[in-house]
Amino acid sequence: MVAGDGSGGLKWRRVSTRELLSTRIFKVVERDCEAPGGKVGRFVALEAPEWATVVPLVEGPEGPAFLMVRQYRHGSDEISVEFPGGVVEEGEEPAAAAARELEEETGYRARSMTDLGWTYPNPAFMGNRFHVFLAEGCEPEGRVCLDEHELVDAFLVPVGEVRERMGKGQYSHALMVVALYLAERELRSRSAAERELASRPSAGL
Amino acid sequence: MVAGDGSGGLKWRRVSTRELLSTRIFKVVERDCEAPGGKVGRFVALEAPEWATVVPLVEGPEGPAFLMVRQYRHGSDEISVEFPGGVVEEGEEPAAAAARELEEETGYRARSMTDLGWTYPNPAFMGNRFHVFLAEGCEPEGRVCLDEHELVDAFLVPVGEVRERMGKGQYSHALMVVALYLAERELRSRSAAERELASRPSAGL
Repeated sequence: MVAGDGSGGLKWRRVSTRELLSTRIFKVVERDCEAPGGKVGRFVALEAPEWATVVPLVEGPEGPAFLMVRQYRHGSDEISVEFPGGVVEEGEEPAAAAARELEEETGYRARSMTDLGWTYPNPAFMGNRFHVFLAEGCEPEGRVCLDEHELVDAFLVPVGEVRERMGKGQYSHALMVVALYLAERELRSRSAAERELASRPSAGL
Repeated sequence: MVAGDGSGGLKWRRVSTRELLSTRIFKVVERDCEAPGGKVGRFVALEAPEWATVVPLVEGPEGPAFLMVRQYRHGSDEISVEFPGGVVEEGEEPAAAAARELEEETGYRARSMTDLGWTYPNPAFMGNRFHVFLAEGCEPEGRVCLDEHELVDAFLVPVGEVRERMGKGQYSHALMVVALYLAERELRSRSAAERELASRPSAGL
């Protein structure tokens, strides 16, 4: 350890929680929490539903591409290009939410979905999770079905172009960087496994 | 385009904004916004200060390592391992905030800081930005100085280990995945530039 006394690894205890505000997309709560040493502090947090995003890998006319959606975002007041995704409904599995959002926003359905794991959008004040899936074998067999106030365009972007642009300009949604990172790690680990398999002598020889 | 009529690329107009709640770390507002077609909808948003994080690259006893901090996070109710960072104070430059947080949380100062860009933590309902810096030439020349209620330990983790763990277990802060992604892209692009330079014939020959 280069600094600290080990107390960063200790959990606090939630003593009480009060709701400050309830909105359509989250609740704001205030909690009294007790530090490992016994001192009590007051902290504000956001309680939001789980979120899910799907990275749809498609064989485009010019090679592998991602299916992306473009829409206006009210928080940033900017146009944003993202992987399809949204809120996991109550009682819904994250994989089902990802498949549903894929179809609603793009009209595509996937033959296979791989669970790439989840991260906390911001564990400092939010406890909800952001789930990421890789969709493969995507075909335009479904029906676009947008929520009221959703104006979304879907289009294909070559994989190399997404890699190059991610984290800049219209590709500035932090959680999409996370989704791409997890998808690329999955694809790299598959390539490594294939190379490993190819380099092994056959069992019969 | 595979779905949509092009309206996903059009901006909305903010008609009015009302504050619903003000807390120590953000404000909640409600806005009436006009769609490109003229229809008006009501949207909730969070107004938060800018955030900054620094990826400190250190030559550790066993090769290159990142300087990381471990702390309890109130949103997730979990222990989290992260790059140092925090809120950009009013009137402060993001780079100054990153350098300040590095010193306050770890006691280290950096000889050089590279701006790796920024992303929106979630442009759907937040307009603030998350800035990322790469810190190099880090030395323990500063002084740890934690806020009230901050219990933070700092330690070195080999680069390969951070890469392997990121996005799982105690490394589940989405924005840290973004920081690592941006830092790795910078380091890769430097290696590529060095290889390119090394492969060129010298000017004098």
